[in-house]
Amino acid sequence: MIQIAILGFGVVGSGTAEVLAENKKQIDAYCGDEVNVKYILDLREFPEHPLGGRVVHDINVILGDPEVVLVAEMMGGAHPAYDFTRAALEAGKHVVTSNKEVVATFGAELLKLATEKGVCYLFEASVGGGIPIIRPMQTDLASNEILSVSGILNGTTNFILTKMKNEGAEFAEVLKEAQAKGYAEANPTADVEGLDAARKIVILAALAFGKLLDPNRISTEGITKIGRDHTAVADKLGASVKLIGHTERIGDRVLALVSPFLVSSANPICHVDDVYNGILVEANMLGRALFYGAGAGKLPTASAVVADILDILSRRAGERKLPKWTPATETDVASAEELVSRYCYVFEGCAKCAEKAKAALQGEECVFLEGSKFAVVSKKMTRKDADAAICSTGLEPLFSLPVLD
Amino acid sequence: MIQIAILGFGVVGSGTAEVLAENKKQIDAYCGDEVNVKYILDLREFPEHPLGGRVVHDINVILGDPEVVLVAEMMGGAHPAYDFTRAALEAGKHVVTSNKEVVATFGAELLKLATEKGVCYLFEASVGGGIPIIRPMQTDLASNEILSVSGILNGTTNFILTKMKNEGAEFAEVLKEAQAKGYAEANPTADVEGLDAARKIVILAALAFGKLLDPNRISTEGITKIGRDHTAVADKLGASVKLIGHTERIGDRVLALVSPFLVSSANPICHVDDVYNGILVEANMLGRALFYGAGAGKLPTASAVVADILDILSRRAGERKLPKWTPATETDVASAEELVSRYCYVFEGCAKCAEKAKAALQGEECVFLEGSKFAVVSKKMTRKDADAAICSTGLEPLFSLPVLD
Repeated sequence: MIQIAILGFGVVGSGTAEVLAENKKQIDAYCGDEVNVKYILDLREFPEHPLGGRVVHDINVILGDPEVVLVAEMMGGAHPAYDFTRAALEAGKHVVTSNKEVVATFGAELLKLATEKGVCYLFEASVGGGIPIIRPMQTDLASNEILSVSGILNGTTNFILTKMKNEGAEFAEVLKEAQAKGYAEANPTADVEGLDAARKIVILAALAFGKLLDPNRISTEGITKIGRDHTAVADKLGASVKLIGHTERIGDRVLALVSPFLVSSANPICHVDDVYNGILVEANMLGRALFYGAGAGKLPTASAVVADILDILSRRAGERKLPKWTPATETDVASAEELVSRYCYVFEGCAKCAEKAKAALQGEECVFLEGSKFAVVSKKMTRKDADAAICSTGLEPLFSLPVLD
Repeated sequence: MIQIAILGFGVVGSGTAEVLAENKKQIDAYCGDEVNVKYILDLREFPEHPLGGRVVHDINVILGDPEVVLVAEMMGGAHPAYDFTRAALEAGKHVVTSNKEVVATFGAELLKLATEKGVCYLFEASVGGGIPIIRPMQTDLASNEILSVSGILNGTTNFILTKMKNEGAEFAEVLKEAQAKGYAEANPTADVEGLDAARKIVILAALAFGKLLDPNRISTEGITKIGRDHTAVADKLGASVKLIGHTERIGDRVLALVSPFLVSSANPICHVDDVYNGILVEANMLGRALFYGAGAGKLPTASAVVADILDILSRRAGERKLPKWTPATETDVASAEELVSRYCYVFEGCAKCAEKAKAALQGEECVFLEGSKFAVVSKKMTRKDADAAICSTGLEPLFSLPVLD
């Protein structure tokens, strides 16, 4: 029997117990031995739960039990999750996690520690919920140089944007509805301001380029300012407004940002709707590959946690080298202004103004909207150059969005 | 230095050499040693190629060289590819392949032999070209019971169907154009009649359910009969006509088939266009996940071959148990008639006929087309029941298609 422990018995933690129970026969066969949850660490008691008797309140019970070979951390938040993870690795136990905050903030250090201790630290569930993306990037794409990763990494905001598109509704109305339905939290800041997506794109950037950026310092813009005008422009251009986490290399530096983008219909991300997530990886041999599925939710996320558990317990990950991440320094990081893209600027003004803007942006597309509003799409250039070009015309845009082709 | 051999220096074989050369630094770092192509087996000579000096014409040179630890088979066709694969495994060499014909026909036997010999037999490139699907199904989805797999598995036919949709063109015209552009072969039978997709869905069914069906005996219908009427119906229903390989379990039996389907727009496969492939896996914990990308092409396919090479050479696959496939017997296989789905029937007739068909199919959707044609979509039922219901009305449908929701 293989003994494991669950840290945190909230949504994902209890989901992990559920996946282990539901698919037990298959899981035990895969590992060649029975997998047993010996302890559950939580502040609460769960007297009604079949595993209620396994609840402990002291991490040291788990750390001190040599039978426990693996710890699944699903507590959320930086502390004490980080501290318990360190302690478990120090104690020579494998750790798997769904905790994006810990991975995005302390991943470099924890991977190093795990490598030193000869154990695994896996985090498939930290990005894209149940969607296989972390392991495919490390194995299936090992033969490729990754050029960029762009993704819809937050289901709540995608649900809101999809509703706004389909119903021509405003942000505030749809947010209220999403909260009523439980798709958005009472305090939706981390989702709608893009911080959740920022943590995830920082993890994907580290996987792709080996540098771990500070998720609190990358350029992060959420969807609170998106409204009917944005969706109207998207509609006219045959595109969708999506909250995108994007990372690419600019020379030796890494650019990572979160921003609403206009996603062209030729890009498969354009069609990723509702609460689904979709992550597009561009690689030098493979070209584009999209990974799509449930980016959150109890069982999908738990199924990714259990996949990591199985990867370790079946010894597939046994001899595997963990990725080596270096915390990014100032000089490793490129600014969002350097992103080369097409940019869409929306103005209010006369036909002559439209001509002027189009000329300045060397753009090919210009569409007219309600009232005297119009949108001009630039040729590919940096944000900095696009802003400078507009500034030189004296026109003041109502807003602008980068385009993901 | 790790010595490997390439069997077959055609498109994928030479692409594999190219990927190994292009991403050499990264690949060697990943393996912790230099990967070197010691031999290339081909009937031809390649005097102009940088690796031209490594060409041999006798498989025994490779089999007899104990330095060669891995053989990448990209010859295509059943023989001698199968025979060389057996011989290489017998000689204790790992084998990776892009050869779907060999995997779909001899996979059970070759996996068994590899397991006995303590080596690997990997075939990521045999389905979906460069798209990571085989390894994710075996690792990331190991925590899930797979319920079904549905996919666009052939890029040539998807290119043709996309053109037919966009241009309202007929099959024969578009095929001619695709051939002129090199997207379809001079003899397009294996693609347009669905045999290529049949081999691939048989491999995916074996991965999902452990039974290897005979690709020549599953129900296989291609796209040669698809025409303007089909795309018109799809248009009216907000769907797309796609050539789908589908597999699911019916009780203890496995159903696998290839057929044109009407794919609803809510299904992400609906938006997989042009030469791209998309594979939707439905699993009991994860729900739906889509894997999308280049389903063919020299470098994408070669990048999957090299991913398998790296999986083995980095020893990640070293201790891994290969899947155990059993050749399916008669009683393991469900018939295509048992597929529970909505079915769309198209008729020519009066409004009264339409009412009659709708009642018989217990359908909710009925749309009127050009002339006096109309389409009725049944409620969910087996093909057998749907056909019987239509038969009982005395109406004769022009054609019918299953619906993928």
